Amino acid sequence: MNPELIDKLVVPNDTKIVFLILDGIGGLPLPGGDKTELETADTPNLDRLAKKSICGLLDPIGYGITPGSGPAHFALFGYDPVKNNVGRGILSAAGINFPMTEKDLFMRVNFATIDGSGLVIDRRAGRIDDETNKRLCHKLREGIKLKSHEVFFETEKEHRALIVLRGDNLLEEIEETDPQKVGAPPISPEPLKPEAAETAAIIAELTDKARDVLSDEEKANMILLRGYAKYRSYPGLSERFGLKPLAIANYPMYRGIARILGMTVNSLTETIEAEFTAMRDNYSQYDFFFLHIKPTDSRGEDGNFDAKVKVIEEVDSFLPVITELRPDVLVVTGDHSTPALLASHSWHPVPVLLSSDTCRPDNVERFGERECINGGLGRIPTVYLMGLALAHAKRLTKFGA
Amino acid sequence: MNPELIDKLVVPNDTKIVFLILDGIGGLPLPGGDKTELETADTPNLDRLAKKSICGLLDPIGYGITPGSGPAHFALFGYDPVKNNVGRGILSAAGINFPMTEKDLFMRVNFATIDGSGLVIDRRAGRIDDETNKRLCHKLREGIKLKSHEVFFETEKEHRALIVLRGDNLLEEIEETDPQKVGAPPISPEPLKPEAAETAAIIAELTDKARDVLSDEEKANMILLRGYAKYRSYPGLSERFGLKPLAIANYPMYRGIARILGMTVNSLTETIEAEFTAMRDNYSQYDFFFLHIKPTDSRGEDGNFDAKVKVIEEVDSFLPVITELRPDVLVVTGDHSTPALLASHSWHPVPVLLSSDTCRPDNVERFGERECINGGLGRIPTVYLMGLALAHAKRLTKFGA
Repeated sequence: MNPELIDKLVVPNDTKIVFLILDGIGGLPLPGGDKTELETADTPNLDRLAKKSICGLLDPIGYGITPGSGPAHFALFGYDPVKNNVGRGILSAAGINFPMTEKDLFMRVNFATIDGSGLVIDRRAGRIDDETNKRLCHKLREGIKLKSHEVFFETEKEHRALIVLRGDNLLEEIEETDPQKVGAPPISPEPLKPEAAETAAIIAELTDKARDVLSDEEKANMILLRGYAKYRSYPGLSERFGLKPLAIANYPMYRGIARILGMTVNSLTETIEAEFTAMRDNYSQYDFFFLHIKPTDSRGEDGNFDAKVKVIEEVDSFLPVITELRPDVLVVTGDHSTPALLASHSWHPVPVLLSSDTCRPDNVERFGERECINGGLGRIPTVYLMGLALAHAKRLTKFGA
Repeated sequence: MNPELIDKLVVPNDTKIVFLILDGIGGLPLPGGDKTELETADTPNLDRLAKKSICGLLDPIGYGITPGSGPAHFALFGYDPVKNNVGRGILSAAGINFPMTEKDLFMRVNFATIDGSGLVIDRRAGRIDDETNKRLCHKLREGIKLKSHEVFFETEKEHRALIVLRGDNLLEEIEETDPQKVGAPPISPEPLKPEAAETAAIIAELTDKARDVLSDEEKANMILLRGYAKYRSYPGLSERFGLKPLAIANYPMYRGIARILGMTVNSLTETIEAEFTAMRDNYSQYDFFFLHIKPTDSRGEDGNFDAKVKVIEEVDSFLPVITELRPDVLVVTGDHSTPALLASHSWHPVPVLLSSDTCRPDNVERFGERECINGGLGRIPTVYLMGLALAHAKRLTKFGA
């Protein structure tokens, strides 16, 4: 089924839909254990909800495919994650609300540490803080002028920044310079097709100059580039589904995806509790809410099983803030799995719960991966979730006569 | 999801993957019974493995579709079984390692028995032995010369042989001459499109001459043709997935599929035990193992429920030979179902078990069709199994940023 089939069926109404996205929620047991992070967590509110909901498992991209956050979120919002796959640069740019133009090539930057012989010894430069990042961007801005193109250096968060090249004939088909491991030198930004040679030369010049400018830094003495992306635009949630969406997310990238898909993006909040409060405070003004919880993924990436359990429990404790608002449809799921066991994203399907007055009962008694196997939603591609949410919100009319 | 999406994500490593394929493993209860062949079999080793694995059901081609062995195996190895469907002739040719050229048209032959009025009375000529088959092929080779094309007669096994026509403008769109039932005459090899008229005439000439040459044979006095296939080549498992594969299979057709997909094919072995031993002996030299067990299917085709149960139990008894090698991923499944009740291949989904250190627990306690319904893999198309195996072997990188 073409995920865009639903677009033609959309009918407007006043119902409200909430997507509570716990990034990387799906997990695995630790060796010798039998329960995932979600199964281990004490989640009385989610469990109560699961009993009245329909549950299942989502495959973000496809069987065996480990998704990046970008395509995984596109799928959550009903956009084909393969067809709409883009370099992360553009998501970063949208994330910090960089004023994009059609002549832009976006790149994601890691500030990194190289040793005396040029080998990467820390891909995150000791996770420098935002203030240092800002200082370094300022230094690069001052120190680097390119012959033919404009260049912008913008802080994202911690060790991450954005570089934007602006000019004619820029192409994104360039080798990423991040070796993705320590002990190796940065990779040369070679063109991946002949027409990209000019862009590659500019990026090589940029990288060399950045190394010079940063040479006196103790930690962040190099930049690593990835996620090249040319400018591109998308039909938004309003255009496709007639929704008035609000995104509550604190990481630039998710704010970027939301912005690219035409969502209003809430001002930054500091805590998980503050995200829930922001949702309550804005509830009357929107009809679709994307509430993004990052720390489930971060603690999974850290390999910290117990800390991930605690984040899930914290989210559970705030769930009544949403349920008391009585949205017509409440979806709780993740963009992908991030098992602490693997300390990375994984290909395992993602537990999902959809709560509405029109859910047909299933036998799920508790929100967890194992229970979701036998949920009424079955195991389905994530991209169809939005259609199900719209249907339960009575926002889709009949197909055919 | 396009099954070839995984190809771009492949990263090499040293992990090992074993596919233990019990041909036709899926079954049905006999009338009055409640258990399939697999559920009836005493399989302590498979059950122990199932508890620690993730289980599910595979659809080789699609709902309700009974697969031939060719497409069913293509699907197992991650090749779209519909797009890559080929006439069995080419699989037979590869199976006996026939030196193929681009000018070849391959045909599968059954030696058969016809009665005085030309009706087929035994489609397998009493399952003649290999020696008789060789004698007959020699006789045909000596007795038949065609005007315009080269022709090759090659023994496959028992009543099965291969005919290869070599020359220009050969097409495969010809009616098969095997009536697929007794009491009917062989079908005339009519062209299925006008351009195939010349090829059809050559095949008609060939069939007539073969009938003459074989007229003094008591049993094998006729040939029946099917599985016409023009030459075609495929990217192999090495090219697509970076694997170094070994096939251990004793039937020409499966050896053929393996060869077509670039696998090294082990020398013939006599028993199931010998196949397991061959795997152990070659374990260090390869990283993907296709271990094919034919008798589950053969006994299913015979309609012999008890004998199929015994084959499954025999395979179970040798399972420790594999598990003691501790492969990173062990898959146990079949290419399709062959219920003894039907004495033929069937459309029923195939139980599957995937064992690795990164399996999320499900509630399956025993390897059987009914338990697999509730397995964590769900019910998925067979073609996605290879991607899952590669993912669990950590041989696929992330999709998108």
